[in-house]
Amino acid sequence: MNIPSKLISDAVEALASLPGIGEKTALRLCLHLLKRREEEVEDFCRSIFKMKAETGFCKKCHNISDQEICEICNNPLRQQHLICIVEDIKDVMAIENTMEFRGTYHVLGGIISPIDGIGPGDINIASLFQRINNEDISELLFALNPSIEGDTTTYYISRQIKDRPIKISSLARGIAFGGELEYTDEFTLAKSILNRQPYENFLVK
Amino acid sequence: MNIPSKLISDAVEALASLPGIGEKTALRLCLHLLKRREEEVEDFCRSIFKMKAETGFCKKCHNISDQEICEICNNPLRQQHLICIVEDIKDVMAIENTMEFRGTYHVLGGIISPIDGIGPGDINIASLFQRINNEDISELLFALNPSIEGDTTTYYISRQIKDRPIKISSLARGIAFGGELEYTDEFTLAKSILNRQPYENFLVK
Repeated sequence: MNIPSKLISDAVEALASLPGIGEKTALRLCLHLLKRREEEVEDFCRSIFKMKAETGFCKKCHNISDQEICEICNNPLRQQHLICIVEDIKDVMAIENTMEFRGTYHVLGGIISPIDGIGPGDINIASLFQRINNEDISELLFALNPSIEGDTTTYYISRQIKDRPIKISSLARGIAFGGELEYTDEFTLAKSILNRQPYENFLVK
Repeated sequence: MNIPSKLISDAVEALASLPGIGEKTALRLCLHLLKRREEEVEDFCRSIFKMKAETGFCKKCHNISDQEICEICNNPLRQQHLICIVEDIKDVMAIENTMEFRGTYHVLGGIISPIDGIGPGDINIASLFQRINNEDISELLFALNPSIEGDTTTYYISRQIKDRPIKISSLARGIAFGGELEYTDEFTLAKSILNRQPYENFLVK
């Protein structure tokens, strides 16, 4: 693209480095920012930089946190003996939004994927074992995506602790509430028949 | 959305204020920025702020420019008597990319649209008339989008200068090169039949 100004092409390049934003979209965003007031753009830049400079990660569960230990790990009302293992911070937010989980988390920050060269040493597994050794953990709830990599990661971790008295569970899999049988894939449908559950489980209490 | 950190929710809000970026996308971008190195995020913010702080607009044609008068208006090799009237800076870039236009531009910064409450006084029309009064202009080429608003704007401006010896032209309209007749709308197709042109016009010279 023929951008007439070095200043603009630098800003376009910066925005286009974000995932899912191409050069054309970046240019559109730049032209939009050029039309805003200078203070607004200053605030825009400051809030992004401040987020990067001041947001840290919880030393215990690797969730995002403004303090050394996050609010969830520090909350005595949360069940500290139950750890929900997730791939990413976004998954923590998704589960917190349900308001149904009262335990703590452990964010792996990735998933074992040999095809991408990601092994157990590349994600936060060592610190999980450290927590299991040092804390009184009674259950691990695996909330990884239902994919080969997710299942591999679950299998790897669960095998390492199989001799300990720790309950290992996983999110229920089956047809989604509000989903349609017609459009559910055969594998999910077959598994939901095999793993059928008492109807009372689904009644709103 | 339940975002656990004020710093992050501020940054999400900033990014979600951009056109076409919703809250979910903004959060995804924030989490991506959190994973980058701090210097990279600093450069990111600086390039955007620098663009806003230092980019100005050409006093003559309202195109973006690092100087008071842009390179196109200042270029003695460009035909200063021919002004191409466009709605937006993006249109200047699109026309410059064709490398076929050797005149100058006038960026209206909008288009007359009574339904949106935009009248002639809200866009850069007065400065266009000033250029017409002060400079030796022989042709205005209207390169506005082929819409009711574009045609209204063209009509408004051309009516104001109808007594002057200035040629008024508009971009040719018709079927696009590489387009398919089957998918061309009836109106465009009908107009291209009525305004048919000598075949030699389309031969590559």
